[in-house]
Amino acid sequence: MSAPVNADAPDVIRSAYAQLAVTDLGAARWFWVDMLGFHIQHEDADSLYLRGTDELTHHCLVLRRGDLAALDHLAYRVRTPDDVDKAERFFRHLGRPVRRVKKGEGTHGIGDAVRVIDPLGFPVEFFHEIERAERLIQRYDLRHGAEIARLDHFNICTPDIPAAYAHYKSLGFGCSETIEGDEHELYAAWMYRKQTVHDVAFTGGAGPRLHHLGVATHESHQVLRAADIFGSLRKEHHIERGPGRHGVSNAFYLYLRDPDGHRVEIYTSDYYTGDPDHETYRWNVHDDRRRDFWGNAVIESWYKEATPVLDLHGHPQPVTDTLLDESTIHVGADGLG
Amino acid sequence: MSAPVNADAPDVIRSAYAQLAVTDLGAARWFWVDMLGFHIQHEDADSLYLRGTDELTHHCLVLRRGDLAALDHLAYRVRTPDDVDKAERFFRHLGRPVRRVKKGEGTHGIGDAVRVIDPLGFPVEFFHEIERAERLIQRYDLRHGAEIARLDHFNICTPDIPAAYAHYKSLGFGCSETIEGDEHELYAAWMYRKQTVHDVAFTGGAGPRLHHLGVATHESHQVLRAADIFGSLRKEHHIERGPGRHGVSNAFYLYLRDPDGHRVEIYTSDYYTGDPDHETYRWNVHDDRRRDFWGNAVIESWYKEATPVLDLHGHPQPVTDTLLDESTIHVGADGLG
Amino acid sequence: MSAPVNADAPDVIRSAYAQLAVTDLGAARWFWVDMLGFHIQHEDADSLYLRGTDELTHHCLVLRRGDLAALDHLAYRVRTPDDVDKAERFFRHLGRPVRRVKKGEGTHGIGDAVRVIDPLGFPVEFFHEIERAERLIQRYDLRHGAEIARLDHFNICTPDIPAAYAHYKSLGFGCSETIEGDEHELYAAWMYRKQTVHDVAFTGGAGPRLHHLGVATHESHQVLRAADIFGSLRKEHHIERGPGRHGVSNAFYLYLRDPDGHRVEIYTSDYYTGDPDHETYRWNVHDDRRRDFWGNAVIESWYKEATPVLDLHGHPQPVTDTLLDESTIHVGADGLG
Amino acid sequence: MSAPVNADAPDVIRSAYAQLAVTDLGAARWFWVDMLGFHIQHEDADSLYLRGTDELTHHCLVLRRGDLAALDHLAYRVRTPDDVDKAERFFRHLGRPVRRVKKGEGTHGIGDAVRVIDPLGFPVEFFHEIERAERLIQRYDLRHGAEIARLDHFNICTPDIPAAYAHYKSLGFGCSETIEGDEHELYAAWMYRKQTVHDVAFTGGAGPRLHHLGVATHESHQVLRAADIFGSLRKEHHIERGPGRHGVSNAFYLYLRDPDGHRVEIYTSDYYTGDPDHETYRWNVHDDRRRDFWGNAVIESWYKEATPVLDLHGHPQPVTDTLLDESTIHVGADGLG
Repeated sequence: MSAPVNADAPDVIRSAYAQLAVTDLGAARWFWVDMLGFHIQHEDADSLYLRGTDELTHHCLVLRRGDLAALDHLAYRVRTPDDVDKAERFFRHLGRPVRRVKKGEGTHGIGDAVRVIDPLGFPVEFFHEIERAERLIQRYDLRHGAEIARLDHFNICTPDIPAAYAHYKSLGFGCSETIEGDEHELYAAWMYRKQTVHDVAFTGGAGPRLHHLGVATHESHQVLRAADIFGSLRKEHHIERGPGRHGVSNAFYLYLRDPDGHRVEIYTSDYYTGDPDHETYRWNVHDDRRRDFWGNAVIESWYKEATPVLDLHGHPQPVTDTLLDESTIHVGADGLG
Repeated sequence: MSAPVNADAPDVIRSAYAQLAVTDLGAARWFWVDMLGFHIQHEDADSLYLRGTDELTHHCLVLRRGDLAALDHLAYRVRTPDDVDKAERFFRHLGRPVRRVKKGEGTHGIGDAVRVIDPLGFPVEFFHEIERAERLIQRYDLRHGAEIARLDHFNICTPDIPAAYAHYKSLGFGCSETIEGDEHELYAAWMYRKQTVHDVAFTGGAGPRLHHLGVATHESHQVLRAADIFGSLRKEHHIERGPGRHGVSNAFYLYLRDPDGHRVEIYTSDYYTGDPDHETYRWNVHDDRRRDFWGNAVIESWYKEATPVLDLHGHPQPVTDTLLDESTIHVGADGLG
Repeated sequence: MSAPVNADAPDVIRSAYAQLAVTDLGAARWFWVDMLGFHIQHEDADSLYLRGTDELTHHCLVLRRGDLAALDHLAYRVRTPDDVDKAERFFRHLGRPVRRVKKGEGTHGIGDAVRVIDPLGFPVEFFHEIERAERLIQRYDLRHGAEIARLDHFNICTPDIPAAYAHYKSLGFGCSETIEGDEHELYAAWMYRKQTVHDVAFTGGAGPRLHHLGVATHESHQVLRAADIFGSLRKEHHIERGPGRHGVSNAFYLYLRDPDGHRVEIYTSDYYTGDPDHETYRWNVHDDRRRDFWGNAVIESWYKEATPVLDLHGHPQPVTDTLLDESTIHVGADGLG
Repeated sequence: MSAPVNADAPDVIRSAYAQLAVTDLGAARWFWVDMLGFHIQHEDADSLYLRGTDELTHHCLVLRRGDLAALDHLAYRVRTPDDVDKAERFFRHLGRPVRRVKKGEGTHGIGDAVRVIDPLGFPVEFFHEIERAERLIQRYDLRHGAEIARLDHFNICTPDIPAAYAHYKSLGFGCSETIEGDEHELYAAWMYRKQTVHDVAFTGGAGPRLHHLGVATHESHQVLRAADIFGSLRKEHHIERGPGRHGVSNAFYLYLRDPDGHRVEIYTSDYYTGDPDHETYRWNVHDDRRRDFWGNAVIESWYKEATPVLDLHGHPQPVTDTLLDESTIHVGADGLG
C-alpha cells in the first residue's frame, strides 16, 4: 500500500461496493444471486444488497430498480470517519459536484458518506462506517453458482487514460500494470490501494462509462463451473468472453453480461502488491498476450460496449469519445477494427 | 474387459446398483441427496431411488426403510436377458440359494432378475433390463453437494480372499491390483468387468459384510468440497478417513459414514483396464503406500467396521472371522493393532 | 462396448496409436515431449516413440521424420492375433489396398500387423501384439508440461459422414453422439469401442485428412497449465482454439497446432458408454452449444485446416470436397462462413 | 492493516524471509528446490537463496550450512530505512540484545538491517532495503514441484501466548483469529501486518522454537501434487500431516518435514484482513474443527516437535516449557496426550 501522495487526500482502504440500476429486479436477482452465487444480505421492494462468501461487511453490490440500466455510483471505503470529511474537502477543492449523504439517507448499511462526481465524470462515494455481516467464510453449505468470494475491482471506460492515472495517483493509488504504446502513450492502467493488482482499472474508450465489476473466486474450477451453469440453462449468450488468462494481472477470467448488459468479470488468482516500492509492470500494446495470455482474440463488444453512469441527480452523464483506441491495434489473432 | 473364463457364466457388464436398508429414511436422504448430491429418480413411502449426474439408467442406489441397517443386495447388470437365466443356472449349479424376481416384483425400474446368495455369502442380483433416465450429464445447474457422477464399485469384507478372487474369476472378472504378503498370500484384490480399476474389491475381514460403496466424481476439488460441506454443518464426524491418495488404484479418496454407519468412498481418477492382457499390479503388504500413497495412517475403524448383509429372506447373515488380518501389519506411521 | 455387427469384422479394442510424419524432429520433440509432457519410450535417428503417463503399452504416438507433414497411419489394437488375419480378410473383401507387416518390419514395439487404406481413404493399421512398458501411473515426479495421461481418440475429416458412420458401424463401433440437421442429415458423429465417448469421430470436410488427435488429462487444471506454458514462452500462436467445454462429449478442451500444423486436442472428462444399449445423443446443428457449450465462436481454421494422409506407399492421398459444410451454419456468436 | 499502536514501533510491512541452518545443503536443496519448487536466486558454497514464483524481491528463504539444524533468524521488511533505526531503538528500549548489520555484512541481497532477540527469545531481523528480482509470475514454464508462489507466514512455539500476543500488538500487528479456552485463556493466536490472515502465529509449547514456515500456492491441486510427488519417490515420510482444511484461516494445508526436520506448511486460500476494524474470530479449544475443519486427528509430533532457534552469536537458545498445553485437549477423533 502506498501512502497518499497528497496529504489532503482521503486514505482509501479499498474498492467497497457498486450500486447498479437494473430494469428488472427479478431478472437481476436470477443472474447475480442464483447464477453467480452472491448472498442476499438485505432486500426491500426496490433493492437487493449482496455480498460474497468471504465478505464481512454489509454488501459489495446494490441492485436498485431503475428505468435505465446504469451505474448509480462506485464506493470506496476510507480509513476513518475523518477521511469522509477529507474526501468532501478534496473534491470541493477540485470544483467537482459534491453531496453529503447522512447515515440513513443513503445506501442501507452505510454510515455518513460523501458522493461526488470525480474529475473523470464518475459518481463515486466515500464512506467509512458500514454494518458488519455474519461470517460466511466457512459456510460451504451455502455456496452455490459461481461461489463469488468478494468484490475485487472496478474497471471504468474513460477517454483520457493519463488524466485517470493522475487523478487516482493523487488519491494515493499505486500502479501495478499498464498497457503502453511504443512512445509510452498510456492505453490502460491498473491501480490499487489494497494489496492486490487493482481496485480500479481504466480501459480506453468513450466515457465516463463502467466497463465492468470484477469479482473474485478462490480457484479456477469455480470460474469454469460458472460458464457451465450458463450453458446448462441455454443462457450461454450471457458469456461474452473467456474463460481465459489475462496477461495483465495474470488472473484467470470470465466475462458475463447481466440481463441489463452490465458486465461482470469473474476473476481468480492475482498477486501481492503491498510492498512500498512495488514497481509498475508495463505491457507493450503490440504484445497480443496483454489482454489474453493465450493469444485468443478479444471480441469487439468487449472493447466497445459499457454501462452509462448517472450524475448526482440520477441523470445519465454525457460521454466523450476516446483519444487513443486500443481496439484498433491489430495483433496476431486479435483482428479487430 | 476379459471374456468370461467360464462359458456357463453370465456376461457381467458392470456393478450396477446397491440396495441398502436404512433405519431413518429422512436422515439417509439428507446424507445421500443433500450432502452427496445424488439425484432422486423415484421415491415412495419406504424407498428412495438415486443416481449420479452421469448415469443414464434408473438408479445406482436404493435406500429402503428397515429395522436393521444392512445391505439388501448388490446388483450387476448383464449383457442380455439370456444372461439372467445363465446366472440362475450358474448359482443353482453351485448349490447356492437362488430366487427369481419377476419384473414388477422386485426393485422399481428393474426388469426380470435373479437374486442369489453367492459362495461368499453375499446377496447379489443379476439383471439386464433397467429403465432409462433423463440425461443429466450437462445439467450443471442441478449439481450440488459432492456432485457424484456415478457408482464406481463395491468393496466387500470377506474372510477368505483367495476364495473371493476365485469366485469372481469364474465370473470373468479381471484383476487390476492386489495386496500380497512376502509369500504371495493374498490380503486384498481389485477386480473389474467395466474398463476401470474395479467393479468389486475384497478387504480381508470378518464377512460377509459390505465394506463400502465407491462413488465417483470427475475431479479432486469435488472431493474436497464434500469434506468442507460436512465441516460447515459441524457434521465432520461423518468423515472417517481422508481425503487421501490410494496407492492401489491411484485414486483420490474420502471415506464417509452415513447416519446408519454405511460407508461410502468418494473416489476420483483411476485408469483404463480394457486391454485383454491387462496385467495385475501387485503391492507388498509392507509398503505403507498401498492404502495411503502419502503414508498417512489408516484409522482402525476403517479396517474393523462394516455393514451386515441380509439373506434372501431379509435376515442378517452370520459372519465368519478373517484368516489373514492386514490391519495387524505395522508399517511406518500406520501403527494399528 | 457393442459386439461386432459383422461376424467377419475384427474385434477392435481401442484406438491405439497414430504415426505422424514431421518435417523437423527436434521441433516436434519440443512440442510433444517438453510442452505436452509425453514420455519417450524409444527413439532412433528418425523417430520418437511416445506415450502418456497412464499408458502401459509401448507407444500411442510415433513421430517420424518426413519431407511432408502428414499422417502415416492410424492404428487400432484388436483382441487376438486372429483378429489381425480377420482384418486382412475384411478389407480384402472390400477390395481395399492391404499390406501385411511382419513383426520387426513395421513400427517398433508392434508385432504382426496389417495396414489398409480403408473405404474412407485413410491409412489404418490393425495389430494385436504390442510391447509392454514400465508403469508410470504413479510417477508424479516425472510429470511435466500438460501431463498427458493417454491417447483418447482420432478425429478425421471426411466428405461423406454417412459413409464413415456405416463403415465404422460395420466394424462394431457404437455411436455416442451426432450432429444432425433438421432432416437428420448427418454433419458429424462420435463412435467408440472402448467405454468412452469415442475412439474415432468424423468432422465433415474435404477428406481424407486427419483433423486431430485427442489426448487426455485427468483434470481441467492440467489443460489450463498447458495453455499457460505456451503463453509463458510466447508460443501462444500454437493455441488455436479454447480452452472451452464441448457440447458434444461434455469434455473440457484445448486445441493446439504442432510445429508442422498437426492439430492435437487436450481433452478431459467424458462419460461411460459401456452398456450394450447405450443410446446415441443427437445434437441439432443449429444449437450453438454443440461445438462450444459456452457459445463461443469456432475459429475458421478449425473447420478448414487439417493434415494430409499418406497411402500405403507413402504418397499423399488425393482429397474430395465435402458434401455438407457445418461451418456454414450461422448460429449465435458462431458467425463463420 | 492496522496502524502501529505504538508510535515508537517500526512500521512492519510483512514477514519477509527466514534463514535456516541445515546440516546437509544438498539434501536441503533437493527438498526445497526440486520438490517444493523454489527458485534459486543466488547461491554460494555455503548458502542457497530461494524465492517463490510470485516474489519480486531477492529471497524469502536462506538455507545456510550449519552443524546444528536451527533457525538463524526470521526477518520482517519495514516501510522505510528510518524504520530500521526505529526498530533498533524499540528493542534497545526493551533491554533486548540488538546487533546492527551493515549492508554487505549480513544476508546477501539485504541492505542495512538490525537483528534482535525479541522478548519471546526469537532472533528477528528488521530491514527495508532488498534487491529486486526478475519477475517470474508468468513463467509457467519454470514451475515445478509444489510451485510455491510466496512465503506466507512464520509459526512460532512459545510458552506464553498472551506475552507473544502483547509483543506483536505493540508492533502494530492485527489479530485475525485465536484459539481460546472457556475462560478466554489464550491457546494460540494469528497476527498480521499484510492483508492476509497472518504474518506470524503462535503455537503454545516449549519455546522459543520455530514451529513452521508457511508458504503459499495458488490452488489446492498444487498442494495435492506436492504430496503425490513425495509418494512417487517413496519419500512419503516427509509428509507429517494433511492434506487438510484448517478451521483457523480456512486454508487448505499440507505439513512436510525437511531432511533436518524443519517443518513447512504448504498453504492455500485464506481471506482479506485489510479493513481497519477487522474483527478477531475466536475458536473455542473444544471445537475439534479448529485445527482440522474435517475433524481429523492431529498427529502428536505436530504439537510436540519444533526447530531450535539461535541467539545473535549463533548459539542455541534455551527453551522454557509451556504454561497451557493445547495438545492435552481431547476432542472427537483428536485423541492426543
